[in-house]
Amino acid sequence: MFQKILIANRGEIAVRIIRACRNMGIRSVAVYSKEDKNSLHVQLADQRICIGEGPARNSYLNMERIVTAALNMGADAIHPGFGFLSENADFVRLCEKNGLTFIGPKAEVIDSMGNKSHARKTMMEAGVPVVPGTKEPVYDAETGISLAEEIGYPVMIKASSGGGGKGMRVAKSADEFEFQFNMAQRESANAFGDDTMYIEKFIENPRHVEIQVMGDKFGNVVALGERDCSVQRNHQKLIEESPSPAINDEIRNAMNRDAVLAAKTVNYTNAGTIEFILDPKGTYYFMEMNTRIQVEHGVTEMVTGTDLIIEQIRIAMGEPLSFNQEGIRLNGHAIECRINAEIPEKNFMPSPGVVKHLHLPAGNGVRVDTALYTGYRIPSEYDSMIAKVIVHAPDRNAAIQKMRSALDEMVIMGVDTNLDFQYQIMRNPEFCAGNADTGFIERMLRLD
Amino acid sequence: MFQKILIANRGEIAVRIIRACRNMGIRSVAVYSKEDKNSLHVQLADQRICIGEGPARNSYLNMERIVTAALNMGADAIHPGFGFLSENADFVRLCEKNGLTFIGPKAEVIDSMGNKSHARKTMMEAGVPVVPGTKEPVYDAETGISLAEEIGYPVMIKASSGGGGKGMRVAKSADEFEFQFNMAQRESANAFGDDTMYIEKFIENPRHVEIQVMGDKFGNVVALGERDCSVQRNHQKLIEESPSPAINDEIRNAMNRDAVLAAKTVNYTNAGTIEFILDPKGTYYFMEMNTRIQVEHGVTEMVTGTDLIIEQIRIAMGEPLSFNQEGIRLNGHAIECRINAEIPEKNFMPSPGVVKHLHLPAGNGVRVDTALYTGYRIPSEYDSMIAKVIVHAPDRNAAIQKMRSALDEMVIMGVDTNLDFQYQIMRNPEFCAGNADTGFIERMLRLD
Repeated sequence: MFQKILIANRGEIAVRIIRACRNMGIRSVAVYSKEDKNSLHVQLADQRICIGEGPARNSYLNMERIVTAALNMGADAIHPGFGFLSENADFVRLCEKNGLTFIGPKAEVIDSMGNKSHARKTMMEAGVPVVPGTKEPVYDAETGISLAEEIGYPVMIKASSGGGGKGMRVAKSADEFEFQFNMAQRESANAFGDDTMYIEKFIENPRHVEIQVMGDKFGNVVALGERDCSVQRNHQKLIEESPSPAINDEIRNAMNRDAVLAAKTVNYTNAGTIEFILDPKGTYYFMEMNTRIQVEHGVTEMVTGTDLIIEQIRIAMGEPLSFNQEGIRLNGHAIECRINAEIPEKNFMPSPGVVKHLHLPAGNGVRVDTALYTGYRIPSEYDSMIAKVIVHAPDRNAAIQKMRSALDEMVIMGVDTNLDFQYQIMRNPEFCAGNADTGFIERMLRLD
Repeated sequence: MFQKILIANRGEIAVRIIRACRNMGIRSVAVYSKEDKNSLHVQLADQRICIGEGPARNSYLNMERIVTAALNMGADAIHPGFGFLSENADFVRLCEKNGLTFIGPKAEVIDSMGNKSHARKTMMEAGVPVVPGTKEPVYDAETGISLAEEIGYPVMIKASSGGGGKGMRVAKSADEFEFQFNMAQRESANAFGDDTMYIEKFIENPRHVEIQVMGDKFGNVVALGERDCSVQRNHQKLIEESPSPAINDEIRNAMNRDAVLAAKTVNYTNAGTIEFILDPKGTYYFMEMNTRIQVEHGVTEMVTGTDLIIEQIRIAMGEPLSFNQEGIRLNGHAIECRINAEIPEKNFMPSPGVVKHLHLPAGNGVRVDTALYTGYRIPSEYDSMIAKVIVHAPDRNAAIQKMRSALDEMVIMGVDTNLDFQYQIMRNPEFCAGNADTGFIERMLRLD
């Protein structure tokens, strides 16, 4: 049983984890950068410790400082949240070396799934469907072009270490292959310090559908249904929902089975997500596995009635899963809108500043995960996501209507946000019909 | 289909109803007194109209003004919330006369259940267990004393028109009967303009367990399980939970069946509550029927996954119930704490004033129904209840722990509240063991 957990993160996810600790009677330690000293997570935690200042490499990404803080504060375990060090296998090893439990999967699994071309190969061998493409890493454009011919254009060039859309480029024909390959490789080298690439068949305007899995240390793996995250801008998710309006029970069950197979293949423990892409014909392919809790986990909590953060902590303490596969049912429909401090009219430029007045929506089936409060200064150093509005209703139409009400009620004064933009999506006929694929936002912006 | 609903109430229940209207795409009209002009319900509604000033008889209790407002604003229907005009049959008739739908039961049913001795008789005849006592109204102490002898002391003397503990007195022996009867009768005459009394066997330290029912215009009645509301001070509920820790499935099922029988006996439509008292041996008796939505309806919503306000509106529009008895299951455990602006140390004296800073708890399974906002002035004219904190967790212990976290996180600066007092209850061994009966708070305060 953990007595104290250090949360190696900030903002709303840190608040979310602190609340889970409180609900379990476990003490919490917040870490913070100088910029974050007035943040809600710092105030809510039982203890707090400053670990440096922005940029993140001097604070939230600084492994040694975080481990030292955990040791000094007497924490038993570290919850990494998402982003920052959450998928860093070296950090997991450093925690272990210092007798701290990392609340997440084992280092080897993070390594193995973090390498996208290796993950692809593992899944292929296990029998999980993957997008047709290269089986081995590609290091140069020349090799790439001949492999691309085999696969057939258009192809997607991807960084093995990639994520968040970085190091990812489409080549529509042999003419542009070399250029796009070199661009993607350069981006990858810059962003991840790794120029290993792989090439896949490019699926045009697919849907992004992912399966939440949880595995315990006894080898039990349960799939908690899907989240449809097709509404994205520049590969950044904007809206997530469960169930997906694009799949029927047959596809759903097959996806859940394949996700469990994928997780079991790598002896997965703790929370993970198997991301699939779904083509318009209903065929799905493994894309990647995220070896951490996701931003959008709340959507799954609403439809399954679970608490995934508490479950993560329990698993890390060596407890068996508190549910089995038969106990998981998707009740009703949940939608999440990510609220960002940004100016949609100015190409979604971040808009940090002071929140002068705040009114959050609430009520039956409305949940807002946020670290905002009236008077809070949103710093410019970090991600622009400032809140997640999640609604739960008996069906998709009712959930959309509830989301409109919630967005309409929400007031954030002092900074620009994408509230109106999200509201527009909730009124968009294509979205409302359940037809939004990953090209939806681009089409919507072109039509504007 | 209603186009527009006028909400004849204020504060958090008005906000709750406005949100339900929004979720259904129905326009809402708020009414307000001069004292409430800056209230959240006034700001949230699509339209608003001032109907006078405090005291309530010049505004929220003024039937003519409210009906006139509804007609002027073009509303189709009126939702009364709870308190004020919600159980006033004359108001229902006035609505009907003016072509407005009253969202609630029919006038005759309100009349018939509003008269407590008549309700008792009706239930007795239908076979619903009632507390042993008088079958006919009692008007004088002399008649009363001979009936009390038959019933056996201690007895409870109650006002037929009573509610909220007014006109209610215990007589422990024949010696004090006359005095207590006269006191109760005088209270009743003053409070309700009616001196009709009845006498029941006094059940010492019972639990208060009530069943939520919903009936549609097609004769369907569904019971939505119980709420245990034993934690009360001066007959005012402080904490409600579902399921009740005091009953097993056998008693639960019998109570649900009796509640449906009670509602069907009077051809009940819309939301209602059958209140039972439960003695320490597990025997329960019908106490009264509340012919409106209750303060504590959210507890039932959390465990059943329903929306009772939306259901009320649907029923009033002539739609059938959206669930049947088989579809109702109590999932997990929900607890509600009522947060009042009052000073527990000064005999719970009301503490109106300006909310200088407000931080509401939130997160997975935490719901706060409130009309508070930073800068809001809580007026002295109305009830001191300012928020309802409702939590939902897999079991009772987890729910208690979650409530502690939520209360701990909640910050209301500028006015005194019972937050700490509620927190103490969440730490009290008797409450935590599930043993709190209606005498619990009195015992706890004596021990302080």
